[in-house]
Amino acid sequence: MTYCIGLRLNKGLVFMSDTRTNAGVDNFSVTRKMFTWSVPGERMITLMTAGNLATTQAVVGLLEERSKTTQERNPTILEEPTMFQVARLVGSTLKEVIADSSEVGQDASSKFRASLIVGGQIKDGKPTLFLIYPEGNFIEVTEDSPFFQIGETKYGKPILVRAYDPDMSFEDAVKLLLVSFDSTIKANLSVGLPLDFSTYETDSLVPSDLIRFDADDPYYLSISNGWGDALRKAFHSLPSYAFEMPDDSVSRKT
Amino acid sequence: MTYCIGLRLNKGLVFMSDTRTNAGVDNFSVTRKMFTWSVPGERMITLMTAGNLATTQAVVGLLEERSKTTQERNPTILEEPTMFQVARLVGSTLKEVIADSSEVGQDASSKFRASLIVGGQIKDGKPTLFLIYPEGNFIEVTEDSPFFQIGETKYGKPILVRAYDPDMSFEDAVKLLLVSFDSTIKANLSVGLPLDFSTYETDSLVPSDLIRFDADDPYYLSISNGWGDALRKAFHSLPSYAFEMPDDSVSRKT
Repeated sequence: MTYCIGLRLNKGLVFMSDTRTNAGVDNFSVTRKMFTWSVPGERMITLMTAGNLATTQAVVGLLEERSKTTQERNPTILEEPTMFQVARLVGSTLKEVIADSSEVGQDASSKFRASLIVGGQIKDGKPTLFLIYPEGNFIEVTEDSPFFQIGETKYGKPILVRAYDPDMSFEDAVKLLLVSFDSTIKANLSVGLPLDFSTYETDSLVPSDLIRFDADDPYYLSISNGWGDALRKAFHSLPSYAFEMPDDSVSRKT
Repeated sequence: MTYCIGLRLNKGLVFMSDTRTNAGVDNFSVTRKMFTWSVPGERMITLMTAGNLATTQAVVGLLEERSKTTQERNPTILEEPTMFQVARLVGSTLKEVIADSSEVGQDASSKFRASLIVGGQIKDGKPTLFLIYPEGNFIEVTEDSPFFQIGETKYGKPILVRAYDPDMSFEDAVKLLLVSFDSTIKANLSVGLPLDFSTYETDSLVPSDLIRFDADDPYYLSISNGWGDALRKAFHSLPSYAFEMPDDSVSRKT
């Protein structure tokens, strides 16, 4: 499994991904799942990947290779005129790779599946995010659905739903994503540290730093340990159930 | 889907289940998933069910029917000498029902799957809980794993992991389970109100009341609304990330 989140804020975009890959619990390693292409001053595109590692590496490899062979007829990820066209290109590349791996058997395609989040901004357009399905189709973030998750999405979703705010700062967004990742890491062995993240400021059109949280990063540890205490405090701040007032609910013998 | 939790505390056992069943999102209804058998002063057994409704109703029906025909040779759920034997009986009944439904096709068995939590106490034994798999085998709670979840287990697990305490009161346990259910209900349409719960006090050996939280229950609403605020407060109590200190983490250009 994997866990990646792409978040759209009023200030810009935030991306975070874990780095664990595994083929069974007895075979795991660290791999980067966040990739950036940019033409400073003109475009910034970040891609995050979840799913079959051979598929996602092939997609990234093809996008990268084609971005360098500008002689070819088809526009590359560095030339597509809009983020929508970038998403179409990434989607069709993903579909192509999966179809290519699947030729050996009719049921094999499910094994080669992958999902992607692609986001960024191209000059004269707005910063945006797309979630790309293994079939090559995709959806875009909206005000009602301002973030995408891929991989092991469930454990870390409740805090995103409750604490996300489009006006939040990058500093708070990094904290929010760390809390969401920490809940997931504590529950699913296939999601693991280190964590990579990057932020993109609207209209900056420059590539952002990729920052990595290792397991001994002091800020990561302060969030991971602090969140347990903060959650327990939050829990104790709520009123306990009062058995003495059965009139509040329907009570009956079984 | 479904969501049920069985919790073992030092004081006793707590059970909570939702009541939503569905066959697609366009066909859902309310059904009880918590069932109790007892011989006051001698035993108290509670069963919760998740999975194919025809399977779980057949299991409950068979257990119920057989508990009334005491003439038969096989011991019933009201006669098994230990909770371990109760779990074996329930497991074999579940396996029998699934096998019976599966005869029509070789791949059909997965459609008829169900998981169960059975817990309670029999005189001279300790209160305990078992998680029963569709194959009829089962595991028992331990000090390290003091609760079981069945159905949609992921969204509601982080708070259980963080806030469970074996010494907690029933009043706090009900609050904990409501928070866990509320996180799940907000994320998965196939888990829904009303919620049923019951508590069992160690060595009481009497059936407990089954209490139902409807969507307009004031205590449920106070937890559901209060938890969002409490979570946000917990989130804001943690330090924000400081981009000004890149020395704390490995930073590099992509």
